[in-house]
Amino acid sequence: MPDPEEFVVTPYEIKGKIDYGRLIEQFGTQELTPELLAKLHHLAGGELPPVLTRGIYYSHRDLGPLLDGYANGRPFFLYSGRGPSGPLHISHLLHFDLCLWFQKRLGVPMYIQITDDEKFWSRPTLSREETVHWGLENLVDLLALGFDPKRTHVFFDSKSIAAMYPLAVRVARKIPYSSVKAVFGLQPSANIGWVFFTALQTVPAFWPSWAEGRSVPCLIPCGVDQDPHFRLTRDIAEGLGYPKPALLHSKMVPGLLGEGVMSTTANRADDALFLNDPPREVERKLRNAFTGGRATVEEQRRLGAVPEICSIWALWRTRFAPSDREFEEITRTCRSGELLCGDCKAKLIERVHTFYDEHAAAREKAKSWAESAIVTAPPKAL
Amino acid sequence: MPDPEEFVVTPYEIKGKIDYGRLIEQFGTQELTPELLAKLHHLAGGELPPVLTRGIYYSHRDLGPLLDGYANGRPFFLYSGRGPSGPLHISHLLHFDLCLWFQKRLGVPMYIQITDDEKFWSRPTLSREETVHWGLENLVDLLALGFDPKRTHVFFDSKSIAAMYPLAVRVARKIPYSSVKAVFGLQPSANIGWVFFTALQTVPAFWPSWAEGRSVPCLIPCGVDQDPHFRLTRDIAEGLGYPKPALLHSKMVPGLLGEGVMSTTANRADDALFLNDPPREVERKLRNAFTGGRATVEEQRRLGAVPEICSIWALWRTRFAPSDREFEEITRTCRSGELLCGDCKAKLIERVHTFYDEHAAAREKAKSWAESAIVTAPPKAL
Repeated sequence: MPDPEEFVVTPYEIKGKIDYGRLIEQFGTQELTPELLAKLHHLAGGELPPVLTRGIYYSHRDLGPLLDGYANGRPFFLYSGRGPSGPLHISHLLHFDLCLWFQKRLGVPMYIQITDDEKFWSRPTLSREETVHWGLENLVDLLALGFDPKRTHVFFDSKSIAAMYPLAVRVARKIPYSSVKAVFGLQPSANIGWVFFTALQTVPAFWPSWAEGRSVPCLIPCGVDQDPHFRLTRDIAEGLGYPKPALLHSKMVPGLLGEGVMSTTANRADDALFLNDPPREVERKLRNAFTGGRATVEEQRRLGAVPEICSIWALWRTRFAPSDREFEEITRTCRSGELLCGDCKAKLIERVHTFYDEHAAAREKAKSWAESAIVTAPPKAL
Repeated sequence: MPDPEEFVVTPYEIKGKIDYGRLIEQFGTQELTPELLAKLHHLAGGELPPVLTRGIYYSHRDLGPLLDGYANGRPFFLYSGRGPSGPLHISHLLHFDLCLWFQKRLGVPMYIQITDDEKFWSRPTLSREETVHWGLENLVDLLALGFDPKRTHVFFDSKSIAAMYPLAVRVARKIPYSSVKAVFGLQPSANIGWVFFTALQTVPAFWPSWAEGRSVPCLIPCGVDQDPHFRLTRDIAEGLGYPKPALLHSKMVPGLLGEGVMSTTANRADDALFLNDPPREVERKLRNAFTGGRATVEEQRRLGAVPEICSIWALWRTRFAPSDREFEEITRTCRSGELLCGDCKAKLIERVHTFYDEHAAAREKAKSWAESAIVTAPPKAL
């Protein structure tokens, strides 16, 4: 019988109930300490985003030296990405929301990678037309969050390959097949594109150093499941003369149906709130979402609800209650039984509708500059 | 004890005395029959190049249907390539000489691939600067043989990647790692670029079909050791909607030191005649070359020499005696003892010097259009 404590976290599989403390030990990462957060708080002029104060990001690699460097006048850049297999859902915004905060508070350049090639290689049912289509749609959604056109650069793999390839060629020589096999658990039947891909995922982390001919540190906020990908990147960085990217790890965001990770695969479309869901669909999904409420109103008034297992509370926590006062009030009244699930959901539905409306308008603006943000030429011939 | 009859032929290893007849059986290729040569002779207006009449190309895959198609108004194209690890030597010209003949007699378009990425991946001692440098040098040498600028296109991998990648992405999904491992005998320590590379080597074979949106057959003249590479290409062709490339296989050309294959690796620089060898070096190498002569002049006059094992005769046979009458005369007088090795070498040295002089002039012309022959843009967005 499998150990009930057993869990698996790799870039391509998440199984079981994750023990995040044990994962820090297993992966050998560092805890995101109050001291480190205080340092960032200071650098950002006395502010931290909710995802950092509410324990959603909880682990890191080398964030300290990166912030110390910044404090001493050494700028860094942000890198995050998206594998375009379909429409974005709300959880996909987590790292980009954080990146946006960094860009707004610290003026940091942002590099976004859209891996239309990787999704085609790793998902046999997707066509190239689909991965390219979703790549552009997803990109516009991300830029529409409010990124600064002057400080935001995009690697759209199949469109940026001329720019990325010279560096990818150097990176690929440093990575033996055996490492990729070990890190991703790829089978011998995995296609050679998928095997090669990690070289391309590494390129943006080194790009500014390569392009500018000097050492520019990189910060990658990512789900802790992506740590192995970038551990590979970190392993080869110094051999190529580039700084190891710093990482900031988030926990997995639960889906609307409760437990696990918000996911769009299998028959779990109702588990995720897609950015292209029409308002009625948003309402239906949120109305059906799993909560920490009790069986009856009477019971809930008496015992209170359990926010920690509630998918609605997770949405307030990660994105829809930017004000700490409001978030604390929701949490307190939920726990005390004052706030009933129906009312809480109605309030969230309204908040989500407002975001979708604003986002639709922002998308139109982002469309006008999305193509021009895509990097297409290498900085030099080699 | 190893079987003395044992030999190994793979794209990355050639060992032992090759039994070409057995290789036809082992690889499952077809013999290049007199009937097939007669068909080509007819299509070419009553001519065949020496390398086809003298048994240097001896095996093929699907040459018959390709020629029948051509006879019925279905044009094809040629594809050959070069991995730029250093200067070209004379043996490297073999397939290009044949391609040039096809282009001149049948007006066939030629695609040349320069695999500067692959050589960087497969040879740990080479730098990117070296593979790019030699790629350009080799390319100019090849174009200078007399290719028609209007009908000759070049894929210089790192410069053509934007053009090749959209098709390479589709190709790569069709090739599992296990096939690459089996075909090339790659070790788990092989880097992921090397693993990926066969996708890029396949691209030119499908390119015109992809670019023109119709089925354009391909002919690839290559050493029989490269057959496994293109067997992989043939295996996936139809699944992608492209015709299987036809192949024309040559035997391995022996080096100046006798036996084996002309090679530049290890301490065998004297085994090969490089295109950038100065005249004195050409003379020295040819003077020292292994021949089929006897121990003394007296013995040679009496017994005659053995052209089949002679590296000088191999050069006459493959390239420097285009006239059959001259070649037969050399062979006859060698065998009879009339022609002594010293005289034969002196004659060849003169012939090679003339070629080098003409080639140096042709190089200057080729330099002017080499860059413009490099394909840099894909035919369409996807």
